[in-house]
Amino acid sequence: MSGGNLPVSGARLWDSLMAMARIGGTPKGGCNRQTLTDLDGEGRALLRRWAEEIGCGVTVDRVGNMIIRREGRDPARAAVAMGSHLDTQPTGGKFDGVLGVLAGLEVLRALHESGTETEAPIVLVNWTNEEGARFSPPMMGSGVAMGLFSEAEVMAKTDPAGAVFGEELRRIGWQGEADPAALQSLGAYFELHIEQGPLLEAEGIPVGVVDRALAQLWLDVTVEGEDAHAGSAMGPRRDAMVAAALMVQAVEEVALAAGGDGRGTVGRLLVTPDSRNVVPSRVWFSVDLRHGDPRQLAAMGAAFRQRAGAIAARRNLAVSVTDFWEFPLTPFDPSLVEALRVAAQGRGLPFRTMPTGIGHDAVYVARRVPTAMIFVPCEGGISHNEAEAITPAWAEAGLVVLADAVLATANRVPGG
Amino acid sequence: MSGGNLPVSGARLWDSLMAMARIGGTPKGGCNRQTLTDLDGEGRALLRRWAEEIGCGVTVDRVGNMIIRREGRDPARAAVAMGSHLDTQPTGGKFDGVLGVLAGLEVLRALHESGTETEAPIVLVNWTNEEGARFSPPMMGSGVAMGLFSEAEVMAKTDPAGAVFGEELRRIGWQGEADPAALQSLGAYFELHIEQGPLLEAEGIPVGVVDRALAQLWLDVTVEGEDAHAGSAMGPRRDAMVAAALMVQAVEEVALAAGGDGRGTVGRLLVTPDSRNVVPSRVWFSVDLRHGDPRQLAAMGAAFRQRAGAIAARRNLAVSVTDFWEFPLTPFDPSLVEALRVAAQGRGLPFRTMPTGIGHDAVYVARRVPTAMIFVPCEGGISHNEAEAITPAWAEAGLVVLADAVLATANRVPGG
Repeated sequence: MSGGNLPVSGARLWDSLMAMARIGGTPKGGCNRQTLTDLDGEGRALLRRWAEEIGCGVTVDRVGNMIIRREGRDPARAAVAMGSHLDTQPTGGKFDGVLGVLAGLEVLRALHESGTETEAPIVLVNWTNEEGARFSPPMMGSGVAMGLFSEAEVMAKTDPAGAVFGEELRRIGWQGEADPAALQSLGAYFELHIEQGPLLEAEGIPVGVVDRALAQLWLDVTVEGEDAHAGSAMGPRRDAMVAAALMVQAVEEVALAAGGDGRGTVGRLLVTPDSRNVVPSRVWFSVDLRHGDPRQLAAMGAAFRQRAGAIAARRNLAVSVTDFWEFPLTPFDPSLVEALRVAAQGRGLPFRTMPTGIGHDAVYVARRVPTAMIFVPCEGGISHNEAEAITPAWAEAGLVVLADAVLATANRVPGG
Repeated sequence: MSGGNLPVSGARLWDSLMAMARIGGTPKGGCNRQTLTDLDGEGRALLRRWAEEIGCGVTVDRVGNMIIRREGRDPARAAVAMGSHLDTQPTGGKFDGVLGVLAGLEVLRALHESGTETEAPIVLVNWTNEEGARFSPPMMGSGVAMGLFSEAEVMAKTDPAGAVFGEELRRIGWQGEADPAALQSLGAYFELHIEQGPLLEAEGIPVGVVDRALAQLWLDVTVEGEDAHAGSAMGPRRDAMVAAALMVQAVEEVALAAGGDGRGTVGRLLVTPDSRNVVPSRVWFSVDLRHGDPRQLAAMGAAFRQRAGAIAARRNLAVSVTDFWEFPLTPFDPSLVEALRVAAQGRGLPFRTMPTGIGHDAVYVARRVPTAMIFVPCEGGISHNEAEAITPAWAEAGLVVLADAVLATANRVPGG
């Protein structure tokens, strides 16, 4: 036994969320606290102050990741970590990322106030630039820490205004000296996050136990027909737009046919020559396919290629489908997933096991460190939007599951 | 009787086409002679020289329309005109517009060389900026002449580089003093043009007798759904992209259901937020519907609105369909259309009567002046492209029909 539930406070967590939301708060109730802005610096400073108030050490690594640490009884044990990110989208909300960081803070506060000792150290990480809104790609801090991106490459990234990542990091005073790769020696990592989808709310379930990140396949599709005047007869047309429209539908159909885990999205589409009275000669669009089973994902890709080829052949057009990017299935750690289930059951909270179809720092961390995630509902599934909203009860549900799973993991008998 | 066929020369017409094509000729065999460029000035100068060589007067009006005139026997009669445009698209071909101008020149040459007198004066017009590629909208010269645009409005138009229409017209030395509205007193107008569609070539018919311009209805369509991460479950999505794709198909289906004259084109489509891994919240697209029967066109518009509304309702999205522009059906002059039929029959040339679905100077001229058009095939229906191609035989077929119809009309017994 872990020694029982930690006396975490949902009300204090909520107060902290609201306090943090004032830094970059927008008139519509959202938050604009983009990475490496002055406001990001303010948010970080507030978190550091809160951490120091409860006696935790705060370290910053060379890409700005903040590592807040509470020592355990056994200095030989690898730390059990929590974390997420304080940066937001330009028109972001108050909870995406922030919930995971401040729930982690609340766990540390409860440990501190109750004088609870843990076997393993407890760590809270605020990862730099998860959103990728200002500097692309997203999940930079966790990506560098886990060895997916080089520090040099990230430091040289520029935002749309030409500002350089490394210079901005130093300007706001948050480049530290720690080696980001040191985070690879964490013993476990838990990330609490809003679902950013509508399932939990629709089903009335407060907790999602996230056991894997879906495999992703990103395709580039180019349909080549022939331009013609919009006044020309229909019969002989080789209209790239209508063919692309049929292929967009095929993406949806392939995803639906793949079952519950299947996802298919056409998020971008560009028309050439893009003139009202010209039948398009070329349409390019992106396809994002996801599935929890890599074989099923490969089958979805093949099915889409077959469908696109058949549409093009039927209409006397050419189509090329090329791989743009592939992201492997990332299974989370079974024992940490089980710790989350046990925690939810222990608190009498209904939960469902589910994948994340969305990238999170946890997905990169899982490459090197045993990892699991907790989802809580968000209203209407809306995120990356000032209207993003959760209830205090949902925040508390995520908090208590996080607290109990962290405590159990930190006190787990080695090898047990 | 008109006194028999004019001895026009298809070979000389072809030589003139090739000579004109060298001004702005591109390595790929096309032509880039955009309106009011130095090259446009060179093309105009060559046409003026050719006209003066055969004793015609050349007048230029205030918007740069060139009016080449050969007097008739009866100064009281309104002129019978031919015309088209020498300006091209940036990657245009050698024939779009140019064929109509230089075939008119060849008619004037044949009249001159054979010493043929006509009752009515014969006029050839080179209209300014038909293409609209550099300065929008298209068909400016004919639009001003026929009172559809004001001179002041046209003079102030700017190209993408910021150059002003009126200044460019003066810079190349082609602003004249004639009143453009004087062209409204023409007695008849014939325009020979490449079809810019594949029908004539496919059917092996060298001559299209064009009896009307299709009515057009341009719509703006906005589909409003909700953005979501590309990793979110399919079921609850309100994906504006897939709904728009279904509506694009509905445009095609509505056009096909309307029968031979029906046209439906989606030439532009814009996605918001336009991100690979975000389900689009909003898609805007243009719809261009055309038909030879205005009631049928209205029915097409209504059918599309109904279909779009049903798609949106089924998918829990909002759609707005608004009128952007409407262009009325333009019937051409029955007696001039008949003159073209008689001319084709007289030369033993197969022809078909057909509409133009595409805007031409003739469509504006027809608002004020009895008008008809002749189409000749172009290879693969391709135009606005350096690959635009016709055969000398097609050019000659259009030329002789134009020549005979012009001669017959110019010598027609008044009231006969």
